[in-house]
Amino acid sequence: MTNHSYVPFSFEDAAGMVEEGLSVLKLPAAPAKLYDPIRYVLSGGGKRIRPSLVLAACSLFSDKPRQAMPAALAVEIFHNFTLVHDDIMDHAPVRRNKPTVHRKWNRNIAILSGDVMSVLAYHLLSGVPSRRLTQVLRIFNKTAMEVCEGQQMDMDFENAREVSEEEYIRMISLKTGSLLAASLQMGAVLGGSTASDADALHACGLNLGISFQLRDDWLDVFGDPEKFGKRTGGDILSDKKTFLLIKAMELARGSVREELYSLIGNKRVPDKEKVGRMKDIYLQLNIGQITRDKMAVYYRKASASLEQVNVTEQRKRILKKFAGELMERDQ
Amino acid sequence: MTNHSYVPFSFEDAAGMVEEGLSVLKLPAAPAKLYDPIRYVLSGGGKRIRPSLVLAACSLFSDKPRQAMPAALAVEIFHNFTLVHDDIMDHAPVRRNKPTVHRKWNRNIAILSGDVMSVLAYHLLSGVPSRRLTQVLRIFNKTAMEVCEGQQMDMDFENAREVSEEEYIRMISLKTGSLLAASLQMGAVLGGSTASDADALHACGLNLGISFQLRDDWLDVFGDPEKFGKRTGGDILSDKKTFLLIKAMELARGSVREELYSLIGNKRVPDKEKVGRMKDIYLQLNIGQITRDKMAVYYRKASASLEQVNVTEQRKRILKKFAGELMERDQ
Repeated sequence: MTNHSYVPFSFEDAAGMVEEGLSVLKLPAAPAKLYDPIRYVLSGGGKRIRPSLVLAACSLFSDKPRQAMPAALAVEIFHNFTLVHDDIMDHAPVRRNKPTVHRKWNRNIAILSGDVMSVLAYHLLSGVPSRRLTQVLRIFNKTAMEVCEGQQMDMDFENAREVSEEEYIRMISLKTGSLLAASLQMGAVLGGSTASDADALHACGLNLGISFQLRDDWLDVFGDPEKFGKRTGGDILSDKKTFLLIKAMELARGSVREELYSLIGNKRVPDKEKVGRMKDIYLQLNIGQITRDKMAVYYRKASASLEQVNVTEQRKRILKKFAGELMERDQ
Repeated sequence: MTNHSYVPFSFEDAAGMVEEGLSVLKLPAAPAKLYDPIRYVLSGGGKRIRPSLVLAACSLFSDKPRQAMPAALAVEIFHNFTLVHDDIMDHAPVRRNKPTVHRKWNRNIAILSGDVMSVLAYHLLSGVPSRRLTQVLRIFNKTAMEVCEGQQMDMDFENAREVSEEEYIRMISLKTGSLLAASLQMGAVLGGSTASDADALHACGLNLGISFQLRDDWLDVFGDPEKFGKRTGGDILSDKKTFLLIKAMELARGSVREELYSLIGNKRVPDKEKVGRMKDIYLQLNIGQITRDKMAVYYRKASASLEQVNVTEQRKRILKKFAGELMERDQ
C-alpha cells in the first residue's frame, strides 16, 4: 500500500456504494408477505452510517474498500432488522416518516420479516473471504448479542424508578455504540489491518456511538423539528429515560425537582405544555450544555483512539470528517 | 477411515451428547430478562432430533462425530428460536407441557430472547473449523431462510380458502423438511463427506422431514393423547389446514362434504363434539390410511437417498434405525 496510489474516498462515496449495493440485492418474490416488508424497509432511506463506516474503515488500509461490501450490507440489514423488532416492542407507529412494518402489515409479519432480515444479514456475511470469515463472524455475533442486550436494558429502564448515568452510558454503549464499533473493526479487518489497529477503531466507533446517541437525545429536545425529520419532544412525551432526563433527575432540587417529578409519567398535561415545561426545567438545570459536554468527552475518546491507528493522516481524513459532522448533525 | 476401527454410534449417544453440550453452554447472567427465557427454553426437553441428526450424519464419515457439535448445537438453538417466535405468532399458550415464553414472561421478551437465540446459534456456528465455515454457514443460512418462508406460507394458509396437497407439501418441506435436510448435510460436510454424499443426505433429510410432519398431523387426530404429550384434536379445533384436512376437503362429496364444511371454522360446536365429528369424517374418507401411505412415499424417497450414500451398511444403521422409529413414533 503506497501513499501515492491513494485515491481519496469520501463518506459520500461510501454511502453511494451502499445504496447501490442494496439496490441490486436480489430478494425472492414469494412469499410476498415475507419479502415485501424487507424491500420496504431497505428502500426507506436512513443515513447508512454503519455500512459506510465499514467501507470507510476498510479504506484506511486498502485501496479497494468495495471488498468490505458484504460486511457493510450485512451490518445495514442487521441494523434495520433491529429497528423493525424494536418498533414492535415500542409500539412505534412511524419510522423515517413512513408507517412501521407492524402498522403497515401486522405484528406477525413484522416479527417474521425481521427474523428473515437477520438471516439475510448472515447470508451477506457469508460472502466475506473465507480466510477472514471466522474472525468477522465472531465480531458480528458479539455485536449482535450486545445490541440485543442494550435493547433489553433499555426496556428494563422503562420500569426502573431511577437509572444512573453510568447504567445509561452502558446501555447506549451496547445498543448503539457496539454496532458502530464493530462496523469500523470489521472494515479494518477486511482491509487487512493489524489486530491493534482494528481494536483501536473498535474503541473509536464505540465512543462515537455513545456521542451519536447523546446527540440524538439532545436533538429530541433542542433540535430543529424541520431538520430533525421527526417531532421533537417525543422522548419527553413517552417519559423515556434519556441522558437529559436522567441528568435532570440527578440534579434537580427543591421546587424544580417537584415540578420535574410531577411531570414524569403524567399523561394529563397536554402534549405541548408538557414538552414546554420539561424544556424549561432542562434550561434551568443547564442540561443542554451538560449533554453537549458529555458528547465532547466521548468525541475526544474517539479521536484519541483514531490517533493510535497506524495509517497516514490523509487516510484518516474520511473518519475525522465523519466524526466532526456527527458532532454537529441536526438530523 | 478403516472399517475395523468403527465404534457403533447410536442415536441415543448423539442425543446424550447434545444434552450435555447444551448443559455446559455458558450464557451471561444479565440482563436476566434476556437470558433466563433462553435457559428456560433450552432446558425444556424436546427430542433433540435435529442436532442428533447432525452428529449422526457426521458419524457416517468420521469416528469423531463430536467435531460436529458446534453445528449440532447451532441447529438446536435455531430450532428453538423459531418455536419461541412461532408460538407468539400462533398465540400458543403451552409448549412441551410448559407455558410458552410470551405467556410466562411477555411478548416483547419473547421477541427479543428469540432474536438473541438466533444470534447464539450463529455464535456456536462460528466454532466450526475455519476451512469449512463458509460452506456450513451457507447451508445454515439457506435453511434458516427456508424455515421462515415455510412459516409465512403456513400463516398464509390460515386465510386461504383452499390449499392444494402440492402447496402443503411445499410448505412442510420448507418449515420442517429443510432443517432436517440441512442437519444431515452439515453433519456430513463436517465429517468430511464428498459433496454428492452430503447432497444425498440432504435429500434424505428433506423427505424424512416431510414424513415426520405428516406423522405429526396424523398423531393429532389418531395418536394416543397419553403418549403424544399434548391433547389430540388441537389442529381440528384451530381449523388448521393439515394434510388430513386438506385431503378431506379434496375428497369429500355430498353429505360428507356438507358436514365437513359446516364444521370448518365453526366455533359453536363444543370441542369434544367437533373433534369426534371430524374424526368420523376422516374415518369415512379413509384419511388416516391415505396419510400413512403418503408418509410411506416420502419414507421410501428418504431411504433411496440414503442408499446412494457411499459408506458401509454398518455406518448407515444409525440413520436407518432413526428413520424406522420416526415412522412408528407415537409422540
